Amino acid sequence: MKLITFMQGTVPCCGLALSETVGLNLAAADSTLPGNWHALLPNLEVVHEIHKKYLPELGEVESARLGGHLLPEPFIDLHKIELLTPIVLPSKIIAVGLNYRDHAEEQNKELPQNPMLFSKASTCLQMTGGPIELPVGHEQIDAEAELAVIIGQPGKNISTQDAAKHIAGYTCFNDVSDREAQRKDRQYFRAKSMDTGGPCGPWIVTPDELPEFAQGLNITCHWNDQLMQSSNTNQLIFPVDELISYISRTISLMPGDIISTGTPGGVGVFRDPKVFLKAGDTITVEIEGIGVLSNPVVDAIDD
Amino acid sequence: MKLITFMQGTVPCCGLALSETVGLNLAAADSTLPGNWHALLPNLEVVHEIHKKYLPELGEVESARLGGHLLPEPFIDLHKIELLTPIVLPSKIIAVGLNYRDHAEEQNKELPQNPMLFSKASTCLQMTGGPIELPVGHEQIDAEAELAVIIGQPGKNISTQDAAKHIAGYTCFNDVSDREAQRKDRQYFRAKSMDTGGPCGPWIVTPDELPEFAQGLNITCHWNDQLMQSSNTNQLIFPVDELISYISRTISLMPGDIISTGTPGGVGVFRDPKVFLKAGDTITVEIEGIGVLSNPVVDAIDD
Repeated sequence: MKLITFMQGTVPCCGLALSETVGLNLAAADSTLPGNWHALLPNLEVVHEIHKKYLPELGEVESARLGGHLLPEPFIDLHKIELLTPIVLPSKIIAVGLNYRDHAEEQNKELPQNPMLFSKASTCLQMTGGPIELPVGHEQIDAEAELAVIIGQPGKNISTQDAAKHIAGYTCFNDVSDREAQRKDRQYFRAKSMDTGGPCGPWIVTPDELPEFAQGLNITCHWNDQLMQSSNTNQLIFPVDELISYISRTISLMPGDIISTGTPGGVGVFRDPKVFLKAGDTITVEIEGIGVLSNPVVDAIDD
Repeated sequence: MKLITFMQGTVPCCGLALSETVGLNLAAADSTLPGNWHALLPNLEVVHEIHKKYLPELGEVESARLGGHLLPEPFIDLHKIELLTPIVLPSKIIAVGLNYRDHAEEQNKELPQNPMLFSKASTCLQMTGGPIELPVGHEQIDAEAELAVIIGQPGKNISTQDAAKHIAGYTCFNDVSDREAQRKDRQYFRAKSMDTGGPCGPWIVTPDELPEFAQGLNITCHWNDQLMQSSNTNQLIFPVDELISYISRTISLMPGDIISTGTPGGVGVFRDPKVFLKAGDTITVEIEGIGVLSNPVVDAIDD
């Protein structure tokens, strides 16, 4: 399944993408369901049931759509809604530094003994298509394509053996980074937390559609037409199950929490000459079997 | 006013502490109010009205309580409820490194040019009285007494002149820190985010009861009977208004967000010999005009 959040009027709603064009509004399919993914993610079985119930009608609904007809409830036209970031305000976004072998090599760094964790503010999330706003006076903003895991069942002290039970799914993440702030602060939080600096989406793909722990997936980042990053999740030094186990030794994981697993080589700051985002660029993260996350870059208006 | 969150059955409720013994249940005073502080904090006027309405009855209610009578709704007996941390799951906890002159001096460090920000996971919060659980195998856990600001009105690009409008109030915070993890990771996030490693409370004191930006308040930390930290918020290198302005240049602040403003000198790791928390200790943070936050230390059970 592909789990989406979309805007209906002023309210974020939970839904499913059934195809490129047609989705389901979960609240319209079952009005007794909680209206947010935080409550739904710990147990997706009821959502699986709804998916199974309506999927057989997809062909008919797609034909109706092509014929210009209004889609019957609970179906929605994905071209007529605004997709939000799949999780709107998670309790936390945990990111991992230096977790791809090739990214460690481009920095001439030894492989880390343990995952190096930092966090991004939940308020940095941006939906696919939404602008990455460059703050006035911040000239060294870089992009980092990452595979993100979304937590379903909450947990603490999760073993690698049990990790799969706590995963709601996977999505694409762009860990936008202010290299100047990163260097000056040493602590990454401010450099990694600017508003719109966490593009995430377009949806959460449930684990049943992917290899175990999303291993062996190609991951790329394009800046406009230029391929900047190209790697595979089999390059992860600490794979998803080990990250979940390591983090949860001391930190409880909550439904909707995002763990972004680190970025491969090829980022702007390690190029010669260095390159950074500029207004007019479009940054596109793509992960095989998950989807495409694409965001235009604009200059923020200083108000 | 003193804003509290307390447990009623299995539901966290918003309330006010009117005295040492008597409080108000806001939902019982006005059933139309939203049931969480995130929704209430941006505009506390309606809460001020309720406070004003019931305060004149306080003497009578306290007498009734002493006489052993059940308190009339919406009053509550503060000795019969469980106080939670005043904000249960904020969108973020931002903390500031090296923000007291005396703490910078004990490390022989130059005063920073800009606030050094890091974050703690929202899941680390612990209420007053709740245990600080030492994770198995983590031997260098330290405590840090801090003044915390709670955001009311959300905002971005807030000027120091406008900062006061965005402050819901102040509370005591204990920035519990795993010194070994802090040293090994360099990034502070894991070291600062262990579950129960964010004691916070006992309540939020609104700004009308304190000096502007909570300046000039004595702040202490006792480990059992020993005074470990003793300073005053006038030692803050970057005061509250400057922190709000600096952070919000790039990061949106949300209702209920916690900014913990840094700790004064005297922490365990800079003592000779170093001292760390051990099971059986009680750590007490006290800030003049705000209150007392006290937490026992226990060994976590490895499960």
